Amino acid sequence: MPNPVLIAPQWIVPVGPPRVDPREPDPAHVVLADHAVVVEGERIAALLPLAQAQQRYPHADTVALPGHLLAPGFVNLHSHAAMALLRGVGDDLPLHRWLNQRIWPLESRLVGAQFVRDGALLAFHEMLLGGVTCVNDMYFFPEAAIEAASTLGLRSVHGIIVIDFPSAYASDAGDYLRKGLELRDRMRDESLVGFCLAPHAPYTVTDDVLRRIATLSRELGLPIHTHVHETLEEVEASVARHGMRPLERLADLGVVGPELIAVHAVHMTDGDLRLLAEAGASVAHCPHSNLKLASGIAPTARMHELGIGVGIGTDGSASNNRLDLLGEARTAALLAKGQSGSAEAWPAARTLRAMTLDAARALGLDDRIGSIEVGKQADLVALDLSAAELAPVFDPVSHLVYSCGREHVQHVWVAGRHVVRKRQITDDAVKLQIGEVVARTTVWHNRVGEILSGQV
Amino acid sequence: MPNPVLIAPQWIVPVGPPRVDPREPDPAHVVLADHAVVVEGERIAALLPLAQAQQRYPHADTVALPGHLLAPGFVNLHSHAAMALLRGVGDDLPLHRWLNQRIWPLESRLVGAQFVRDGALLAFHEMLLGGVTCVNDMYFFPEAAIEAASTLGLRSVHGIIVIDFPSAYASDAGDYLRKGLELRDRMRDESLVGFCLAPHAPYTVTDDVLRRIATLSRELGLPIHTHVHETLEEVEASVARHGMRPLERLADLGVVGPELIAVHAVHMTDGDLRLLAEAGASVAHCPHSNLKLASGIAPTARMHELGIGVGIGTDGSASNNRLDLLGEARTAALLAKGQSGSAEAWPAARTLRAMTLDAARALGLDDRIGSIEVGKQADLVALDLSAAELAPVFDPVSHLVYSCGREHVQHVWVAGRHVVRKRQITDDAVKLQIGEVVARTTVWHNRVGEILSGQV
Repeated sequence: MPNPVLIAPQWIVPVGPPRVDPREPDPAHVVLADHAVVVEGERIAALLPLAQAQQRYPHADTVALPGHLLAPGFVNLHSHAAMALLRGVGDDLPLHRWLNQRIWPLESRLVGAQFVRDGALLAFHEMLLGGVTCVNDMYFFPEAAIEAASTLGLRSVHGIIVIDFPSAYASDAGDYLRKGLELRDRMRDESLVGFCLAPHAPYTVTDDVLRRIATLSRELGLPIHTHVHETLEEVEASVARHGMRPLERLADLGVVGPELIAVHAVHMTDGDLRLLAEAGASVAHCPHSNLKLASGIAPTARMHELGIGVGIGTDGSASNNRLDLLGEARTAALLAKGQSGSAEAWPAARTLRAMTLDAARALGLDDRIGSIEVGKQADLVALDLSAAELAPVFDPVSHLVYSCGREHVQHVWVAGRHVVRKRQITDDAVKLQIGEVVARTTVWHNRVGEILSGQV
Repeated sequence: MPNPVLIAPQWIVPVGPPRVDPREPDPAHVVLADHAVVVEGERIAALLPLAQAQQRYPHADTVALPGHLLAPGFVNLHSHAAMALLRGVGDDLPLHRWLNQRIWPLESRLVGAQFVRDGALLAFHEMLLGGVTCVNDMYFFPEAAIEAASTLGLRSVHGIIVIDFPSAYASDAGDYLRKGLELRDRMRDESLVGFCLAPHAPYTVTDDVLRRIATLSRELGLPIHTHVHETLEEVEASVARHGMRPLERLADLGVVGPELIAVHAVHMTDGDLRLLAEAGASVAHCPHSNLKLASGIAPTARMHELGIGVGIGTDGSASNNRLDLLGEARTAALLAKGQSGSAEAWPAARTLRAMTLDAARALGLDDRIGSIEVGKQADLVALDLSAAELAPVFDPVSHLVYSCGREHVQHVWVAGRHVVRKRQITDDAVKLQIGEVVARTTVWHNRVGEILSGQV
């Protein structure tokens, strides 16, 4: 049994537990100075004033972090990691050209286990160095993405993807489901791997399949993760075809409950929002992707007013070329204010909660991650606030959200493992593998060029 | 005479000269591979294929930058640098509380030459490390900001600030003008220092003074830099008081011409936009500040349609806690798409132009900076695109705008001086000074605390 590890930063923002008395300050705005977190194995064993921690754990190995802020690891609530290999191939195009001339032709020719392994390794590496300790990913060949996450020691949740068209991965909805559920069975002993059901979108999955997914979700206790109300066209097409808005149809089919993670949720009436609020559903907000594809701006200030839990997602690199959850969160906070007309919307502490505990709750993982509490998994991120561009520090939580960038992320722990130290992956063999994948991107680059130029 | 310097990156994006034939690609999207820039003294002496450059300049000192992209240095078109010392003291507050309870009480007690010198040094240091080579700053005690810029070797333009209330700096509009113009006279031999006239805003400067500023602008050839149409309230108050929208009133007083830099320009009718377009005026777009203060979202896609030159500004740290022009430009590009509903708005190359040549033109400096052209000043920035999170590179201009962060800025030259090398200030004495200012922020931090708690 290795020694416990005593992490002693200048400030700790535990984020949880939730406040009991509403007159207390937002727990995500509580900043502890001169405290320490003690990690034993995978878990947080103690959160104590430094002197007490040193007394109680005299044999602990100490990680002293003067000038640093320690926070719960960030949770990326929506990604398509493998698409890192397509970063920047379809910028500044209208949606239909982006899909028809770039993304779909490339995916149909390129996607396979190797593509997913390489792309996901690049994407997860980028996320991890930016402080993400848990990612909710949706893509074909999830077993390859799991391999990438496992290489890096990243916690990951994988969508059991279901879509009503054949791909290199599966032939039909039944095949998608079967493959995903089998994978889940094989991975049941992997403590860092989780699953959710991931029907691609209401418009690409039939009623029967959605009903079956609702049943499976209840039977297996799995979240349901689906793209919904991303564009106005999609909402109008559903009304024309089904006589209902997509969320109404999902509700009809039993899909809208506390287990639902509604990704995007851009074009929302107050009725749509109340439906989510009353069901206790969550939203995965992807502001950069929504802006870049000109989908619109989700009404996230109103979501908070109605008590809807909102997490933040980067989406994939094809629609958001930078997988930077901290930057995404800053944009989420700023955009909520700009769109709602209230500078008080999405304050810093509430935004930090969206990046951590609210996203963990959406994934059904808030008993294990999302805050720095005794007994939870030690998923932690340390940011260096002593840089010149961050002086002076009036409020570490404000700095985390509004001033820091991923360049200030110095240390990352996942389940107690110190996976990033001083902005470097700690495991040399893993660093070597990443170098190999970066070198191999030349091959992917050339294949993309050949496909787009019609040479193959 | 030192040797010429031959800079040999993997890619060069010259941005200029402007295209003559509209069927040619956007010059800001032209990427030169295997080329070199040769710098002699302050200027760009050549832009040539690498082999030719080596042949023609055999004695040049070579800076080899494999995997790097070389672009014109970024121009920050609007800042209040000294406010770096107030970063994060007033987040998440509505505008009137932000001003009345935080910014104004603090400014009235703190602002003086030392405050401006320290704050501006912090802010300019942050900007320079993020690739900014020229900043347009507006604040009290501009001589102290000039000292800070000069310490760092940063090119700067300073507002001759005019506002109709007394401050520690000046007593009335006449005094502000006189002090600013005297400073300009004293600085006339400083090649890196420029000036513009900076009436604070239409609502804080009288008609007479604005008329005088219009005359001075024509006589002295100075741009006019003013906050305008930032909030809806300000527009409505002008209509109530003057029977005109602020821009109409400025036009009436002779202030709206090619020399005008309209800062913010958020609440704009099509008539307001046409007024700017027809006058050949420019806009300084500050998206993060406009969002954070819940002012709104400027119609920047429409500005481009009308041919209005739009540059990008960070604004001050009190309303945008991160002085990161690259991040600001990415948000500008994304927000233009999201707001206009067109993914084609503000494409990457056009955004790069906004960060460089369009801002230089607004300042009347496009004959000297803003693009990599022979004879222009060597204001350059090199970004390392070989990082794992940027692989593969399909389009270096897309990567610059959508994927890079300021953490990828490795080298910066201003007027031929290599001021940042491998993310470090090259001059050790300057580094030392910055360390001293960072240490002194503790004093400012404590004074702010005392003022806000009513102890002094």
